[in-house]
Amino acid sequence: MLESNKPKDCQNLCNDFHSTIEFLGKRWMGIIIYSLFKGPKRYHEIMENIPGISDRLLTERLRDLEKEGLIVKRILPTPKRKVEYELTQSGKKLEDVFLTIVAWTQAKNES
Amino acid sequence: MLESNKPKDCQNLCNDFHSTIEFLGKRWMGIIIYSLFKGPKRYHEIMENIPGISDRLLTERLRDLEKEGLIVKRILPTPKRKVEYELTQSGKKLEDVFLTIVAWTQAKNES
Repeated sequence: MLESNKPKDCQNLCNDFHSTIEFLGKRWMGIIIYSLFKGPKRYHEIMENIPGISDRLLTERLRDLEKEGLIVKRILPTPKRKVEYELTQSGKKLEDVFLTIVAWTQAKNES
Repeated sequence: MLESNKPKDCQNLCNDFHSTIEFLGKRWMGIIIYSLFKGPKRYHEIMENIPGISDRLLTERLRDLEKEGLIVKRILPTPKRKVEYELTQSGKKLEDVFLTIVAWTQAKNES
């Protein structure tokens, strides 16, 4: 339970809230993260999961996620230099955020 | 735990996720909702909690929240027709969403 709601108390919490909401609210961000919850994926596998996304935007979002430390790019030990993307520990923990938001939305729509 | 991440499974979940994220991500939305978690407030009390917000935007956000069924506007039984804003049940349940997002952000920043 939140203990106070004076402006000074909210400032940090609300900044944390807003910066994350803004990041997750970028177009396609939710579905890209979602497609990685079950495990690492190659670029074309992510693309196949997201009908309608452009190459440019998928590349841009994967860079955003890498920059924020939410995914890592790994080179697979295969003859051809294959790459896959995997959520980091922080990235995996977004599943709680995702599920909490989805549960709230569904409860609201049913009420 | 999410059971599958094929596109068809994600479609509804990801739409629910995105619509809520988009709504909560509107400018000042987080702090307005936050300022109501502790109980009903009058317009000027919300305004005082949010340095920098304009009259126009506070009015607009309160209307957004009312339209979405997240707050109700109540006329107080006072000689002057005073109004206060209160979170509905759905609105109050946003505290879980808020706290989950803040907790994730703080854990990420500390890691």
